[in-house]
Parts: sequence; C-alpha cells; structure tokens
Amino acid sequence: MSLTTRTVFSTGQQETAIRVPLELHGVPLPPPKTTLQKLRDKVSEIFFPDDPLHQLKNKSFKTKLILGLQYFFPIFQWLPGYGFDLFRSDLVSGLTIASLAIPQGISYAKLANLPPIIDSSFVPPIIYSVLGSSRHVGVGPVSIASIVMGAMLSEFVSPTDDPDLYLKLAFTSTLFAGVFQASLGIFRMGFIIDFLSKATLIGFMAGAAIVVSLQQLKGVLGITHFTSKMEIIPVMSSVFSHKNESKKKPRLFWVSAAAPLTSVIISTLLIFCLKSRADKIPKIGQLPKGLNPPSVNMLYFHGSHLALAAKTGLITGMLSLIEGIAVGRTFASLGNYQVDGNKEMMAIGIMNIVGSCSSCYVTAGAFSRSAVNYNAGAKTAMSNIVMATAVLVTLFFLMPLFYYTPNVVLAAIIITAVIGLIDYQAAYKLWKVDKLDFVACLCSFLGVLFISVPAGLSLAIGISVFKVLLHITRPNITILGNIPDTQIFQSLERYTNAVRIPSFLILGVAAPVYFANSTYLQERILRFIREEEERIELGRERLLKCLILDMTAVTAIDTSGIDTIYELGKTLQKRSLQLALVNPVGSVTEKLHKSKALDLFSSNKGLYMSVGEAILDITAAWKA
Amino acid sequence: MSLTTRTVFSTGQQETAIRVPLELHGVPLPPPKTTLQKLRDKVSEIFFPDDPLHQLKNKSFKTKLILGLQYFFPIFQWLPGYGFDLFRSDLVSGLTIASLAIPQGISYAKLANLPPIIDSSFVPPIIYSVLGSSRHVGVGPVSIASIVMGAMLSEFVSPTDDPDLYLKLAFTSTLFAGVFQASLGIFRMGFIIDFLSKATLIGFMAGAAIVVSLQQLKGVLGITHFTSKMEIIPVMSSVFSHKNESKKKPRLFWVSAAAPLTSVIISTLLIFCLKSRADKIPKIGQLPKGLNPPSVNMLYFHGSHLALAAKTGLITGMLSLIEGIAVGRTFASLGNYQVDGNKEMMAIGIMNIVGSCSSCYVTAGAFSRSAVNYNAGAKTAMSNIVMATAVLVTLFFLMPLFYYTPNVVLAAIIITAVIGLIDYQAAYKLWKVDKLDFVACLCSFLGVLFISVPAGLSLAIGISVFKVLLHITRPNITILGNIPDTQIFQSLERYTNAVRIPSFLILGVAAPVYFANSTYLQERILRFIREEEERIELGRERLLKCLILDMTAVTAIDTSGIDTIYELGKTLQKRSLQLALVNPVGSVTEKLHKSKALDLFSSNKGLYMSVGEAILDITAAWKA
Repeated sequence: MSLTTRTVFSTGQQETAIRVPLELHGVPLPPPKTTLQKLRDKVSEIFFPDDPLHQLKNKSFKTKLILGLQYFFPIFQWLPGYGFDLFRSDLVSGLTIASLAIPQGISYAKLANLPPIIDSSFVPPIIYSVLGSSRHVGVGPVSIASIVMGAMLSEFVSPTDDPDLYLKLAFTSTLFAGVFQASLGIFRMGFIIDFLSKATLIGFMAGAAIVVSLQQLKGVLGITHFTSKMEIIPVMSSVFSHKNESKKKPRLFWVSAAAPLTSVIISTLLIFCLKSRADKIPKIGQLPKGLNPPSVNMLYFHGSHLALAAKTGLITGMLSLIEGIAVGRTFASLGNYQVDGNKEMMAIGIMNIVGSCSSCYVTAGAFSRSAVNYNAGAKTAMSNIVMATAVLVTLFFLMPLFYYTPNVVLAAIIITAVIGLIDYQAAYKLWKVDKLDFVACLCSFLGVLFISVPAGLSLAIGISVFKVLLHITRPNITILGNIPDTQIFQSLERYTNAVRIPSFLILGVAAPVYFANSTYLQERILRFIREEEERIELGRERLLKCLILDMTAVTAIDTSGIDTIYELGKTLQKRSLQLALVNPVGSVTEKLHKSKALDLFSSNKGLYMSVGEAILDITAAWKA
Repeated sequence: MSLTTRTVFSTGQQETAIRVPLELHGVPLPPPKTTLQKLRDKVSEIFFPDDPLHQLKNKSFKTKLILGLQYFFPIFQWLPGYGFDLFRSDLVSGLTIASLAIPQGISYAKLANLPPIIDSSFVPPIIYSVLGSSRHVGVGPVSIASIVMGAMLSEFVSPTDDPDLYLKLAFTSTLFAGVFQASLGIFRMGFIIDFLSKATLIGFMAGAAIVVSLQQLKGVLGITHFTSKMEIIPVMSSVFSHKNESKKKPRLFWVSAAAPLTSVIISTLLIFCLKSRADKIPKIGQLPKGLNPPSVNMLYFHGSHLALAAKTGLITGMLSLIEGIAVGRTFASLGNYQVDGNKEMMAIGIMNIVGSCSSCYVTAGAFSRSAVNYNAGAKTAMSNIVMATAVLVTLFFLMPLFYYTPNVVLAAIIITAVIGLIDYQAAYKLWKVDKLDFVACLCSFLGVLFISVPAGLSLAIGISVFKVLLHITRPNITILGNIPDTQIFQSLERYTNAVRIPSFLILGVAAPVYFANSTYLQERILRFIREEEERIELGRERLLKCLILDMTAVTAIDTSGIDTIYELGKTLQKRSLQLALVNPVGSVTEKLHKSKALDLFSSNKGLYMSVGEAILDITAAWKA
C-alpha cells in the first residue's frame, strides 16, 4: 500500500493506485453512551481525576475500613511501623526546624502586623502531622500570606490604633481561609488553584516583596550590609522556580537554617551586654509567656469588617494553599511518593480552622522549613510534632530571652526573606520561553506594586485567562504536505521535504472549533483557498479540486462550529470544490453525525481516517 | 517499510525491523523568527486575518487609489456599471421593503417606548447604500435592539413621565452604539462579537421575547386569534437558526412582507368607517408630518444618566451589530459574494452616528427586510435608496392616513414579531447536539426573564467562556493502538481493530498544555500508567517499558506545561520508564528546545515525527 501511495503522492499518476484494491477504514463513532453516562464520566473527570477509591476495589470490608481510616488520617499509614531509627532522624530535623521556626514566627507575625505570636508553629503542625499526607512538609506561617494579610487588613484597620479589632479580624480571616481551603478539598475543586499560573505568581511575589521591603526598610537603615550576609530564605522563591534545586547543597541548607537563630542570639547578647548604652534601640520587649489563650471568643461574625475578613481569608487562604500544595508536591517528587492535592487541602484547611480558634493565623507547608526539614533528614510527619514540642518548651521557658532582641534584626530577616521572593531568573526564563507568560508576570508585578494586592492578582488571572481565550480565538492553521515514502502529512513550512499533492489543499486545524473562532476559521480557510488558487495560477499547476481538513487536532466542537463546517461545505460546493474531513475525534464525529452536517457529502464519502486514504479514495473517484 | 512495521507491531518480533535500515525523519524546528516578526505575525493574525490589502499587491498607484476608494465606499464598485435593468429590480424590491418598513418602523419605535418615528428608515439606509458592502441588506430598526433599548432605558427613566429626557437618552445611546460599532470596525476588533455564541443568543432572544410579549399583551387582549393570522417575522428568528431557509419559499415572503401593511390598512379603514362608534379604541393619533428636526442638540453628555446611555448604547450596539453582520453574511453566502465583517461594522457604526443626529435610533441590517429585499429581487444597495425615498414621500404626504391606525394592530405586529424570536427548534437542536451549549442557552433565557437584560447576557457569556476553560482544564487523553497494516495509531476505544503494542503505553493528549491543566495532566497520565500496569499484571503481559505521548493535538504550551513535561519525565526515570514525545507542533517544539526540557533525553532521542518511528527506533535500541 505504501508503494501505491508513494506513486500517487509524489508523481500524480493515479493509475497504479486505482489498480490496487483499497480498503478504507472509515471513521467509527465512539461507543454509544447515554446522556447520564456522559454526565457521570464528565463529572468524575472533573472532580475525581485521580480516582481516589481505586485502592478499595475488591477488598474485604475490614481492609476497606482500615484503608478508609488511613485515607482520612494518613498518620495511621506510618505510625504502626514507626520505630526508633525513624524517630532519631525526625528528632534531629524537628529540632532544626524549631530553631528556624521561632525567629521566623516572630518576624512573620510582624510582617502581618500581628503581635509576636509564635503559637502558629505549635497547634497547626500537630494537626497536620495527623491529617497531612506529606512526610517532609514543615508547617508554619508563610511569608506571602503574612504579607497579604498585613497589607489587606491594615488598609482598613490600623494595627496600632485598634490592635484588638485587628487581631480579631486576623483570626476571623484565618478561619475563613481554613473553611475555604477545606471546602475546596471536600468538594474536590482542587483545580481552582491551578488558575493562578506560575508566571502570575512570580510577578505577584516580586511585587509584594518590594512593597514590604519598602515598608520595613526604615527599620534597617544603617545595617543593610549586615542583613545581606544571611541568605536565609532565597530558597523560598525556588518553590515556584526550579524544584529540585533544594537537592543540590543540603549542607548550605543547614547553615541558612541556623542563620536566623544565630543572628538573633548574637544580636540579643550584644544588646544585652551594652544595654546601658543601647536602650534607645527598639527591641521586641516583653513577650507573653506560655500559650496564648484560645481565640474562639475573638472570632468576629458581624459588623462592617466581616466582608474584609472574608476577602482577606479567601486570598491568603488561596496563596498559602498554593505554596502548601506546591511544597507538598515538590518534596513528594523528591521522595518519590504521591500527595493527594485535595486531601492536602482538607488537611491545611482543618489546620487553619482549628488554628483560628487557638490564636494562630494562616499557616501552610512553608517552603523554607520543609526544605530544611527534608535536608535535615526528616522521615515522617513526626518531625512536625517534635518541632511543636520544642516551640512549646520555648514558649514556656525561653521567651524572656527574646526581650533584648532588637527589632532591626527581625526587619532584616523579613527583608532578606521577601527579597528572596524576587525571582528574576524565572522571570527571564519566562521572557525567553513564552512572551505572553512574561506579560502576565509583568502585569501582576506592576498591579501589586502600583494598585493593590487583589487588583494585581485579578489582573494577572484575567490576563492568563485572556491568553487561553486568545489561543482559542485565533487557532493555528497549517498547510500540510506528504512526507515522501510515508503516509504521513506534515506542515510544509516545517518539513522542507514534505511535498504538496497536486489539485489538493490539505489544511490542519489546531484548536477546538467554538463560537469564539468559528467565523474566523471560515474566513481564514477561504483565504487559504484564495491564496492557493493564486499560487496555482502563477505556477500553471493543476487546478485545485479538493480541500482536505485534517481535524486530528480539533479537540472539540460546539454547535456554532458544526454550522461553520456545514456552511464552509456549502460555499465550496458553489465553487465546485470538494471537501473532505479527516480523522475527527470521537466527540466531534458524534456531533457531526447528530447535527446532520454530513448531509453535505453524497453517501457520506466525506469522512476519512487518514489524509492518505482520503487522497487515494478521492483521486480514485475522479478517475472513475 | 510498512511491512517491517507490520511484523513489529502485531507480533513482537523486532528482528525484521532491526535488519531493515530505518531512517528517522526527526522533528525540525519551525523556520527561525525574531520576536518582532512573531509579534507582527500574531498581530496581523489577530487583527487582519482576512488580509484586507491583498488586492492592492503589485498594482499601479492609480489602481490602488481606485481600489482604495472602492474599499471605503463600496458604492463605487457597482455604481459605474449600474443600468436600467438593475434599477428596475431594485425599484420593485425597494418599494416592497418600504411597505414593510412603515408599519414596522412605527411598531418597533413603540417597542423601544419611543414616539412613532420612522425616520430610522430614511437616513440610515441612504448612508448604508454608500458605505455598506452587502447588496441585499435592508436597513432599519431591529426588534432585538429596540426591545433592549426600551427595557434598559425605561428601567431608570419613564418614557411617559419624562418623554423628553427619554428621547434624549435614546439618541445619545444610539450615538454611543454607533461609536462603539465604528471603532470595533476601525480597530478591527470584529472578533469580539464572536463571543456572543449562537446558543447564548437563542436563549437571550426567547427570554426578551417573552418579557416584551407580556408587556404588550394587555394591548391585544381579545384579538389574539387575529394576530396569530400574520406570520410576518418568524423569519427574523431564523437569522440565528438555519440560514438558507429564506431561499425556500420566496412567494411566501412577499405575502408575509405585505401582511403588516395590509393589516394596518384594513384595520385603519375599519376604524375610519366606524369612527363614530370606535372612538374608545386607542389609535396612533396625530403623527408629525415630514422629517423630524435634526437631533444633534438633543445629545446628552452630562448628568447622572450618561452612564446609562453608554451602557444601553454598548449593548444595543452589540446586538444590532450581531444581527447586522449575521444578515450580511447570510445573504452574501446566498448571493455567493463576501462581506468584510470589519467594514460592515464601520458602515453600521457611521450609519448610527449620523442617525443619532437626525433623530433616528439604533438601526442595522434587519433580517425581515433583507429577506424580503432579497426575495423581491434586489440587485444592489440602490433598493435601500428607493426605500428611503418611498419612506420620505410617506413622511411628507401619507402620514395623516395613519391617524386611525389602532394601537392594537401595532401591539399585534410587535407580539408576532417577538414571538417569532422564540426558536424552540434551535434550542432542541442544541440539546441534541451539545448539552453544554443548551445550558448556556437556558441560562441566558432565564437570566433575561428573571433578572435583567445585561445580567442575562453577561451570565451567558460567562458560561460560554467557562465552557471553553473547562475544556482546557480537563483535556481529553486517549490510549492509542495501531491499526493493522498501517502506520496509523488510533483510539483503542473507538477503533475496535486497533491493537496495543506490547510494553508500550501510547497516550494521545488533545488540548493545549497550560497552567490551567498542567497539574491535572501530570496526575492523570500517572494514573493511566498505574492502570496500565495493573492491567498488565492481570494479563501477565510483557512489562510496561515506555510511555509515548502523541502531542499532535497539543496545540500550544506555556511555561507551566513545559515544567509538567519535564517533571513527568523525571518521575518516569525514577520508575525506570522511558518517555518519548511524538510530533509536537512547531511552537511547542520550539519551546521544548528553548526551555532545555529536552535534557531529559539522552542525545535528544526523545522526539519523533510519528508514533510508528518512535516504536521502531526504541525497540531497536532495546535490541541493541
């Protein structure tokens, strides 16, 4: 067959082709389904793409029960087999991240304009260790969410003039964040967070970072060169930039992990020694000893600021969720295991719901901690429990030591943290690989910098969506030619060895045919025909007799699209040009049949499985 | 070659394949382009898909000038060659549509809560005949735009309490509509109107129709059976339903065209004869004789209602534009000539701008008139001039005759007109062919019916866009198998004769890989692998060794997508599974190269032009 096709395609002598009996494959419909079945399939595709219950298939009830328990409380997956060896490594890593957690907790709280509460490193980690499915995530406040909460709340409520209300709003928005996150997980709407593209986030974080740095800068004037010495959090940025960096130099991580604590200790000692002369330097001052009281009574469900709390909760929840999930996925892929996005969301959500009642603000899997945790050799979520215990001890016995810690150090920690969020390499890569992504990135950057956090975000989302729509509105159409000695047809532009088939115009359409592009497609295809006819005239070649549409890449079609095809066929008939549709996908074939658009074709000789067969069959028909 | 591939594919004895020297085609990059070139190409694709200047290529300056003149004033295309024969047919058709125009003009004005001004059938047609590129369009007010204007304006300004302000707003919004339409044309943003899908409009029109009928019904009570006798405007609906109906029974058109006029005449005479006893029946009453004064002074650019005028203008402009363009395209395709969407927009826009200064409200190519015009044998836009003249004569001499025309008749005309907009067959077809389109249709219907016109529209647009996004978020992935005796790979589900290739899993991805679906794709593909491995275990088949991604239908990719591919490759490496990418389109290949994602593959042996070549090459490598 390839022989006959060869002769047909390269030189136009069809004789040989005709002599060979040619059996066509035809274009079958997909197996019939009822509307209900289709709906069910679609729904399960949308909400359960990972088929979460596949483990339970044909198991005994008891096993099902255990598996179900393990599904909802992953701690039961590892606790039974938990031994001393595992604990030793978890102990080390747990203490390591605790040393990072305390100064970070204080600084990030400051970032959110909150009093230095570090409970957020106590309750949430314990809950996560029960519910979370990642083994390496270190739970705690995340810079980006802290920034946004600070920015959004203090826009309307001053943390200095009305600290009580501010605190209430912080806890309330944490609750909202948690509810939002948990419900995303429960209703399996995980895919929603996918709509914040990486490009958007890079720009967004850079913008936020600059805003915050400017806020904090006044606190650090004079000691900038000192802060530049501790490169603690640049790793945070890499959560959204390249993901296995963290594997490269584990030692460096330990250093960077120790850096904040050491700097805090050193500076505190320094101030303590010369306290007589340094009493003008602002310090943290008295810290509440022990756990803060439960904050259920501080939740705030009435009055004018409820909407603000809800909005803040939504956005901070979204952002922390994105970092949390991304972190989980990152280390899962490093440790070569899977984390279930929707389950993670539930865990993080519940963590924040409980957190909001125990005076914690928004937390998630923080990248810096998780990276440190992973590199300090954490094996299970136990390391979170260890950290929590260490933090508890600190809360009860070591807090007074922080009395002399100068604020400048915290400001410095913050600035280096957020400066690390500016990921110019990633931005440059965007520019190199995908200009439109870069534009989206730039817009969210400028939006956050010059308008506001929500404005910047929605702007960026808008652009990302617009980009998708643009791709749909102006789909790519390419002229195809035959690759000699094969039945393969490829773009004439790319494959220089591809050859045109005389008196055929073969167009490959690459997009779903929707209301948004049906008109364009029709006019564009007619233009292709016009140009082809002009070309033929110049070259005195054989007249154009048939248009073949390769629909392999037409991934979907709607009613407008169907009409377009129908009208195109009509128009071509008027010009006595033949139309053939090649290899439409299942759903498209189905709709073509249902909509009677195929009445165009005498005896349905218009659908072919491959361009090659179409050409052979049509030329044969011409001969006959 | 097909022979060797046959042996390889169906039975797994690669020997024969290895012996045959196999030359691979490789996957070339698209011809290199600078960013600027790419940008230029993209822009010209977006704004000039029809390549408007193609006629001017290599012509003398004089010809260019003439062509340019003809481009902007299509009248110069046909006027030079205009003769008596043409005029005769244009005269007949012009008078015919005039007879339709007068009662329609009065009714539609009523529909928009405006005084019975029928100037809208005088000035705009003349302008269109100079600027418009369609030969058969009959210009006049369109029901849908009249409805919307009436609904939106009277929501805030009562046409009875403050008729003057209402009139001002009507003219102003007409101006806005015109400016909006013209600028869409000038900036070649024609594709924007494509975002109102047909499905949306069907629902929208049905909803609007019901709303209006209910408003008007009180006027007709008692004579409903009479109104049901005149099927004048159901044809209007068919503008968005099947398009060459109008060709079927031309005679009936003439009848339906005459219907309104006759009914008006009959009823008027009736009332006139028994005026003594019928003076309780509300009539049109005194109509202004002659042309209304220019309305420039009535344009309204200040005060609280400006926004309302702008909004109304935008929406009515959009709707009339859609009908206008659709009508133009319909009859162009019947008459086998092209109309330029953007040019039409300019024509309609300018028409409305001028109209707003000569006391006309929004007009466009009305379907009913155009259909009548076409079937009465119109040859050129001259028929519009004829109509305009006839209307002018009426305005000056025949208006008093309408004194006795009872309002009920107008109400009746309106109701039959709008009832005709309810296109249940089309809705049923939507349900049959595309359920989601039907939902969009339903939502716009209910939205308009129970909320408001703009709400209904935006709801429907939202759904249509969501539908597109949904398609992107959950792309279709199919397992492919080889069609025996060919190099073609097709869905195993659809093609029952397709066979799996031992130790290969071949997945066809059908969608652009974007931030919105990259995570989903990764997890879904991993699930496919898991399920395949389970299947293999059950069947004790040869172990899975290689995953082939057929990227033919991956129409585009962004940076998130690139990362996904890269991470997928990494994960597979960990499981010692091989990955091969087949036939990525130009832009995707380019980005893969730029982003270094191909570092995955030792010596870039990961890109293949066809699945067949990939399998042959990889199996050969295994043998070696």
